Amino acid sequence: MSSNHESLFSNIPKYVIIVAGGSGSRMQSAIPKQFLLVNGKPVLMYTIEAFNNTEANPQIILVLPTDYHEYWQQLIKKHTFNIPHQLVTGGETRFHSVKNGLTLITDHEALVAVQDAVRPLTSPLTIDEAYQCANEHGTAVVAVKSRDSIRQVKDGKSVSLIRDEIYLVQTPQTFKASLLRKAYEQPFSPNFTDDASVVEQYGAEIKLTEGDHSNIKITFPEDIAIAELLLSKKPQV
Amino acid sequence: MSSNHESLFSNIPKYVIIVAGGSGSRMQSAIPKQFLLVNGKPVLMYTIEAFNNTEANPQIILVLPTDYHEYWQQLIKKHTFNIPHQLVTGGETRFHSVKNGLTLITDHEALVAVQDAVRPLTSPLTIDEAYQCANEHGTAVVAVKSRDSIRQVKDGKSVSLIRDEIYLVQTPQTFKASLLRKAYEQPFSPNFTDDASVVEQYGAEIKLTEGDHSNIKITFPEDIAIAELLLSKKPQV
Repeated sequence: MSSNHESLFSNIPKYVIIVAGGSGSRMQSAIPKQFLLVNGKPVLMYTIEAFNNTEANPQIILVLPTDYHEYWQQLIKKHTFNIPHQLVTGGETRFHSVKNGLTLITDHEALVAVQDAVRPLTSPLTIDEAYQCANEHGTAVVAVKSRDSIRQVKDGKSVSLIRDEIYLVQTPQTFKASLLRKAYEQPFSPNFTDDASVVEQYGAEIKLTEGDHSNIKITFPEDIAIAELLLSKKPQV
Repeated sequence: MSSNHESLFSNIPKYVIIVAGGSGSRMQSAIPKQFLLVNGKPVLMYTIEAFNNTEANPQIILVLPTDYHEYWQQLIKKHTFNIPHQLVTGGETRFHSVKNGLTLITDHEALVAVQDAVRPLTSPLTIDEAYQCANEHGTAVVAVKSRDSIRQVKDGKSVSLIRDEIYLVQTPQTFKASLLRKAYEQPFSPNFTDDASVVEQYGAEIKLTEGDHSNIKITFPEDIAIAELLLSKKPQV
């Protein structure tokens, strides 16, 4: 594939760090969420395929807890999955996992997307737009406007926030490698719920790019059936 | 049905105002969302049934744009729908529609739930708990914790909020009638995105009660199929 869009940043090396940390506790399942089957195929394989179907065509770094490396190799054989990727050991938290993934990226000119392994429905267009925005601005975080009213609870009291100002953050979250590496040298904080919060804490401004509500995170058991439904409605690549 | 739970507030009159305002524009559909079919039955009928299946067993007030009153009567005949309810004319905005519904409630001791017509999956248990909480505290707004990181955009810049403090607000939103009536005497503000924001502006503290993520609002076309899927997984009443 090629286009004017792609030509704008085709010489820049691009990576994605796909982070799979889940232990499966909320899914009432012994199998971590990233391995659950959606139409017979593990969630994680859809996530990797989404990045492989982009114009950006990044190098793929997969961060998995060591305990599951052998299981993943078995799944690859079973599903004859042949998208090239590098496998890295997961850390104690998402923060530490991303940090482990970053050790493989030495090129400071690169663009790095960080992606939840359990978001199998991210569209290739969304991913390409995020690389594009990160190339221009240094940061690009995919988000959607809240369709619900929002309240913030502090000291046991709830106050309403202005709905139009509130965005629900998804992944990918894409950054210039030099910025992301420096941000991840900060000491860990429990408020680091995503990469944007790490990079913001380091002092950079976070640009948002538009996602869509179907880019769901597999969190609860019913999400598997919803993912199957949404996949059935997606245009085939 | 009866229980100790019910006996706590069985003598208090209870109402629900079901607000249906949607024009259907976001659904790419000429039919407003509340009339779209879920497994062959209009969304709105599920919403009414949910309240009819509670222990609270409230009187039901349905607020519909006048243009759709005749259509609704036709649907009632076609689906032999026989849950009693009062029909009221919708207003220019949700705020004005709720206000119209409130004119039918003269009893100041009552409890009043306000419900989006396009939330067909609210569980009867959630509704009963909301009436219970409103009886104790005056306010009860159903909400769920955000599962996504949250950013707030102000003056073109985005900042992260602490995810554990953020709740996505659903309906029902339930109040003591006296409080709700007074709150709705305030002049309209565009920041009134829900009843909680109106009552909060009046000066009352808003109590949150726990909802669940399956209590979805039909907003986008794919939500109909998701509602069908979630209904198929619900225990039958």
